[in-house]
Amino acid sequence: MSICLAIHGGAGTLRQSDLTEAIAAARHEGLRQALRRGFALLRQGGSALDAVTEAVMELEDDPQFNAGHGAVLTDHATLEMDAALMSGADRRAGAVAGICGPRNPILAARAVLDLAGPVLMIGEPALNIARAANLPFEPAAYFLTDSRVAALQRELARRASGAPDTRSDADRHGTVGAVARDHAGHLAAATSTGGLTAKRAGRVGDTPIFGAGTFADDATCAVSCTGTGEVFIRYTAAADIAARIRYRGDSLATAAHDIITELSQHGGDGGLIALGPTGAPELVFNCSGMYRGFVTEDGTLHTAIHREAFCVAAL
Amino acid sequence: MSICLAIHGGAGTLRQSDLTEAIAAARHEGLRQALRRGFALLRQGGSALDAVTEAVMELEDDPQFNAGHGAVLTDHATLEMDAALMSGADRRAGAVAGICGPRNPILAARAVLDLAGPVLMIGEPALNIARAANLPFEPAAYFLTDSRVAALQRELARRASGAPDTRSDADRHGTVGAVARDHAGHLAAATSTGGLTAKRAGRVGDTPIFGAGTFADDATCAVSCTGTGEVFIRYTAAADIAARIRYRGDSLATAAHDIITELSQHGGDGGLIALGPTGAPELVFNCSGMYRGFVTEDGTLHTAIHREAFCVAAL
Repeated sequence: MSICLAIHGGAGTLRQSDLTEAIAAARHEGLRQALRRGFALLRQGGSALDAVTEAVMELEDDPQFNAGHGAVLTDHATLEMDAALMSGADRRAGAVAGICGPRNPILAARAVLDLAGPVLMIGEPALNIARAANLPFEPAAYFLTDSRVAALQRELARRASGAPDTRSDADRHGTVGAVARDHAGHLAAATSTGGLTAKRAGRVGDTPIFGAGTFADDATCAVSCTGTGEVFIRYTAAADIAARIRYRGDSLATAAHDIITELSQHGGDGGLIALGPTGAPELVFNCSGMYRGFVTEDGTLHTAIHREAFCVAAL
Repeated sequence: MSICLAIHGGAGTLRQSDLTEAIAAARHEGLRQALRRGFALLRQGGSALDAVTEAVMELEDDPQFNAGHGAVLTDHATLEMDAALMSGADRRAGAVAGICGPRNPILAARAVLDLAGPVLMIGEPALNIARAANLPFEPAAYFLTDSRVAALQRELARRASGAPDTRSDADRHGTVGAVARDHAGHLAAATSTGGLTAKRAGRVGDTPIFGAGTFADDATCAVSCTGTGEVFIRYTAAADIAARIRYRGDSLATAAHDIITELSQHGGDGGLIALGPTGAPELVFNCSGMYRGFVTEDGTLHTAIHREAFCVAAL
């Protein structure tokens, strides 16, 4: 079976005009690092579930992306992170919502999955599961970055002034995610996010909702989404891609493209990455850009931000 | 368009041997009251969304059912209620998870839906939305009933003793829900629950997950589920019924029956109620029983608990 890993760093990208060469280069390198980390595992025969976990950990650790270190702030200037992952082989799943503490929220989701009991945990009990799993915790200051604090201040000032919302996608949303296929042909998906800048505290988006922002099923596809989560939830975005493949025989490409177009018609902007039991991954979006990348059997790293051709690099 | 309302009071029923005639009569009457309340609205031209809200409020107010007054307790002896509702006409949706305060959790979910912004809210911010909507609140003592306290004590004692789990379905799970079709042909679904007796605090089940425990789409169906929520989430139970109808042309009956059989194969026990754009509702379950009922155009009330014939009563 041909191994494959695809990732996204969110459909919230800087405007092309604001993206200096230096910033773009750093984003590409951040994506490549996540691809390298997940792919190293896959190449050694590791599982898709471990590969998506590792790739998402790398993106969480990188403050350029909205998850873990570098997560955005709520309208109460608090941090509320959501993360989820799912195994396509057996539909095992784990998710956490509204937490702040574990350095890598995706590991907290993994700890829930490993319990093989509950699949979605919120609040202090979710943190207790992370503690019981001996995960490293960090104070709130670790997650905070100057650029996210500035973004919150800009947005709260805009709301106070009544000015129209002219934020770039980068200020509005962002999420990180990964999908992988391993040597055994198993699929997995993982997603992690700080949510929307200045989101309402207590709001849970599509990331930890299986069938909306995160989904995996060996027979059809693994999917990780990014965007205006409410629309992805109401239209069960990820599950609907799987359903079109399973029940109507759509190709992965057709299903992924059609869904992202339809979400747009319902007011949902964003993107998703999807991977089937065979073939190449789909990385689609209906907004200005999506930080994204993939690597297949031969180890060539492909990364892109807007609609330009993929930047290609050796492993 | 022919109006219809179907409800469930949970797939967690007493064993047939423990169900005295007096208890059974009271359960039937509780179900009929909920049917009457929702149907009265539908008959006057009210919306499906309002009808499912009213029917679920009645079931929440009735301590016989596990939602609102009479909700079960977590392993920390706390109350954590989840509720959700969805409009099939436009996929508007609102849900709350892990709350205790509003007398009717379904009204808190409705308040989220009415915001037309977030769809899933947790914790204190969810309560703030309920407060802003001027919903009546109750102290924890209001929700507590002697039988739920006793059920928790039995279960905690069992766990401490290491004895096998021989609880009846009634002690293990329970949820209330409604699906409706109005004169305009619109569908809606609502679900509300206290969760599982002695569930892990912080655990969120399928109730507030759209596409898992609650779903509505005018073109296909409205669905409300009850059972071991984790399996319903991992197999996107409600959304999968809609997908089989939409993409494969399955009938509502075939899709509902097949899903409930498949969930059983994956370790999921429970049931669901489903209603399509035309025709009768489906009320299916793979365990010993499900408190359930329905009423169609002519106003005849049908209620049942185990696999006996429906008990029929006039409006």
